Amino acid sequence: MLEAGEEASQRRARRAGGRAGNLRRGGGAIHQMPWTLPQNRDRPTEPIDAEAVERVHDGAMRILEEIGILFLNDEALEIFERAGCDVDMSEQRVKMDRAFVMEQVQKAPASFTITPRNPARSVTFGGDAMLFVNVSSPPNAMDLDRGRRPGDRESFRDFVKLTQYFNCIHLAGGYPVEPIDIHASIRHLDAIQDKLLLTDKVVHAYSLGKERVEDAMEMVRIAGGLSHEEFDAAPRMFTNINSSSPLKHDFPMLDGAMRLARRGQPVIVTPFTLSGAMAPVTIAGAVTQQTAEVLCVVALLQLIRPGTPVVYGSFTSNVDMKSGAPAFGTPEYMRATQISGQMARRYGLPLRASNACAANVPDGQAVWESAFSLWACASAKANVVYHAAGWLEGGLTASYEKFVMDCEMLQQVMHYMKPVPVSEDDIAIEAIREVGPRGHFFGATHTQARYETAFYGPFLSDWRNYERWSLDGAIETPQRANRIWKQILAEFEAPPLDPAIAEELQSFVERRKREGGAPTDF
Amino acid sequence: MLEAGEEASQRRARRAGGRAGNLRRGGGAIHQMPWTLPQNRDRPTEPIDAEAVERVHDGAMRILEEIGILFLNDEALEIFERAGCDVDMSEQRVKMDRAFVMEQVQKAPASFTITPRNPARSVTFGGDAMLFVNVSSPPNAMDLDRGRRPGDRESFRDFVKLTQYFNCIHLAGGYPVEPIDIHASIRHLDAIQDKLLLTDKVVHAYSLGKERVEDAMEMVRIAGGLSHEEFDAAPRMFTNINSSSPLKHDFPMLDGAMRLARRGQPVIVTPFTLSGAMAPVTIAGAVTQQTAEVLCVVALLQLIRPGTPVVYGSFTSNVDMKSGAPAFGTPEYMRATQISGQMARRYGLPLRASNACAANVPDGQAVWESAFSLWACASAKANVVYHAAGWLEGGLTASYEKFVMDCEMLQQVMHYMKPVPVSEDDIAIEAIREVGPRGHFFGATHTQARYETAFYGPFLSDWRNYERWSLDGAIETPQRANRIWKQILAEFEAPPLDPAIAEELQSFVERRKREGGAPTDF
Repeated sequence: MLEAGEEASQRRARRAGGRAGNLRRGGGAIHQMPWTLPQNRDRPTEPIDAEAVERVHDGAMRILEEIGILFLNDEALEIFERAGCDVDMSEQRVKMDRAFVMEQVQKAPASFTITPRNPARSVTFGGDAMLFVNVSSPPNAMDLDRGRRPGDRESFRDFVKLTQYFNCIHLAGGYPVEPIDIHASIRHLDAIQDKLLLTDKVVHAYSLGKERVEDAMEMVRIAGGLSHEEFDAAPRMFTNINSSSPLKHDFPMLDGAMRLARRGQPVIVTPFTLSGAMAPVTIAGAVTQQTAEVLCVVALLQLIRPGTPVVYGSFTSNVDMKSGAPAFGTPEYMRATQISGQMARRYGLPLRASNACAANVPDGQAVWESAFSLWACASAKANVVYHAAGWLEGGLTASYEKFVMDCEMLQQVMHYMKPVPVSEDDIAIEAIREVGPRGHFFGATHTQARYETAFYGPFLSDWRNYERWSLDGAIETPQRANRIWKQILAEFEAPPLDPAIAEELQSFVERRKREGGAPTDF
Repeated sequence: MLEAGEEASQRRARRAGGRAGNLRRGGGAIHQMPWTLPQNRDRPTEPIDAEAVERVHDGAMRILEEIGILFLNDEALEIFERAGCDVDMSEQRVKMDRAFVMEQVQKAPASFTITPRNPARSVTFGGDAMLFVNVSSPPNAMDLDRGRRPGDRESFRDFVKLTQYFNCIHLAGGYPVEPIDIHASIRHLDAIQDKLLLTDKVVHAYSLGKERVEDAMEMVRIAGGLSHEEFDAAPRMFTNINSSSPLKHDFPMLDGAMRLARRGQPVIVTPFTLSGAMAPVTIAGAVTQQTAEVLCVVALLQLIRPGTPVVYGSFTSNVDMKSGAPAFGTPEYMRATQISGQMARRYGLPLRASNACAANVPDGQAVWESAFSLWACASAKANVVYHAAGWLEGGLTASYEKFVMDCEMLQQVMHYMKPVPVSEDDIAIEAIREVGPRGHFFGATHTQARYETAFYGPFLSDWRNYERWSLDGAIETPQRANRIWKQILAEFEAPPLDPAIAEELQSFVERRKREGGAPTDF
């Protein structure tokens, strides 16, 4: 608490001066942190003990052994059958024993690196890495000026530009908003071309049918200036597949995952296990089911190509039992994410989780749900944080302002991950002696040598006092974010790309459009 | 990420129904969690290793041995001198060696219980306990209808009522807003009387001069129906004192702390060590100085009465080096709080920290700063979270809406602290078998037996879909909070108090007013 004396000191400290909205510091829309791959060295929070982890593991194994999983994909069924699993072809159900599953899971690497067209943007999954991915897949876009509306190519490009601009976003994940003004048969061609031109970060391909997946791999290969052999030799992109919980993997996602696996490209496997709806109402039960649904696909992909990079994806949250509406950033979401971390470490797999929220607008609720999600990711040691910036409304909307607000939080998490130095010089006894009981540290030598870089500098927080903030228009957080994204888009410059490669990409897209793109009846 | 299939599932899950603003569920303004004392069983996050903890300790000891601390209180100086410390009476500076300090610190209890006038509201400090205290000491109040204005007795009472109403607030700390319309000489009499009538939770006394402290103790004694001996026999209330950093303890705070110590009442010692201003620009240096400033007062109080309950208070944050404005909820604040936790555990003392923010309004910035502060408190294993609800603007404003928003976050933290059950029944293999790959869990027996209590139910989050939320007026978080506090205040009922005790309290206040209250020239 601030006692009376403390409060007076604070008012003295809060001098009339202040940072003027933080814009244009150092030129450009904002002064942001440099491109950095944060390392999360903290011990994870582990809600359940080692014995309970084994009970969850045993439950997942019993699901795979006794109940089985539907694989709605004949090729997958045949692969399992050849491997000696108990496959019921008419029911499309596979049962597999734990020795088999664990033998396959052990083939997956604990960490791997994906190299995009700009090798300086390579990212490593696993270990202490904590990577952030833009919001992916909402059908709607929203901003303060235009409100909520269906996504289109213009808003898609805007969000790809924001993804490229912010150094705290490490990968360009799924479509940050669905460009529904492009026909579904050719949408992937335009969208991936936009992504490859507007970003040089790792890109993702949806597993939505053979043509889309093969086109995406080919376009990433072309953009990287790679031969087919070079593409196959190392991870260059990734996909994410969801189970159709409970206990079912659908055709197109399995098809896409298998296509990527054959070419050594990474697959994130993320069951859609909302507790109370598609998974048990207990968190332990939902994570058990999630684990079974992840591991059976990991086994499939390791059968196809041993060593395929895979990620244990956690999306377990709860629903509102009154309405069935999904909830995110809840206490249950936090604990499920942390327990998922325990399971991923049990299997030696990288972990994916999300910065999710249920709020409809970028208000207080959106921020507490997102902040709680982010700290769940950090305390679970999630290696990949999907939807790290821009997600609203349970994933139905991509928000321009929320994107900027989330990036402010992401930068703070990244700064938090930096080690705290505790050398003799940091302990600063000589500075304390120099200042003594009647001085202050503003002018101390120790301070002067460090003040420019001592503390994290936010680009969106307004730390000016109430009077100055009011005189300047009393601008609240979303309105400040609104100004920032407009400036970023106005100043955006695409990353360089060899014109010959851009031309090859363009030719490929034109040819595939002439061929009709992808079927839309899958 | 939500892939296309996942998104469709989600839209199905998001049925048209929804919770209608969560008001009046179960009667009363909101359906809140019951009075509970949360236990934080998670391992703390420890940013520095054991050797670095010893370097911070050694630094704190060197400050006390080599540089010394100013004690602007002759009685304190005499006590130190009698104990054999190196006291410079003219400079009012005390140096003490580490053997002496640690001998005194070891006398302080690792945990203790405070019993207020209603013993059902007793709270235990220390161990795994995590207790929440209302915002304390802002000079201004703010709400959406009336804006920001100086605090008065009416807003003071409003915040005391909110403090009493919310079960997630465990102690009634300092004045939640300063009632500046009451003359300073008698303000403590009216304010403490209001607190003792409107709440039955543990109350606090400001250490602002002999009369205020003695009056507060006497009023708490009367309200508890206690003899003087009973009052002295166990903790009944507490104070919090701040150092006047760097390296200085002022007269009135020391005087109050010593008065409480003599009667066995707890003292929280919270240096005001803003890194870069009143403490070194390095987090390690600021925590080192903070530790020295805490431990020397702990030693003083243990000399006065061995076993006096004390708390290691952490308020270390950073300032904006451009303006000098204090910042809260920053990465630096988080790490400083966690390292403070390491130091408090090193000394076997309970830890106090805060839910602090710098934002001027209850917007996104306010929430991320508060959420980051709260998770810092949780991961530091803070036993007492000051300013847990209602603080804005670096402590210069108490906000009605922020109070309600914070209580939503506090409830979520409390729910998060509940153990996750992982029995065979929780792992739910039979439920998963029953539902199978083509069903859902809404109707499962396992779900039906648990759905009413399975998940945390927020009172402020709106989880309805965008369409329903829009049709209902598109009410954002602060406006929803505005409705809730008005309903709480409209329905408020004071906790029962024996009329004879209320009368005795009234007589005491009247007599002390006739005597002139407290001098105002301290």
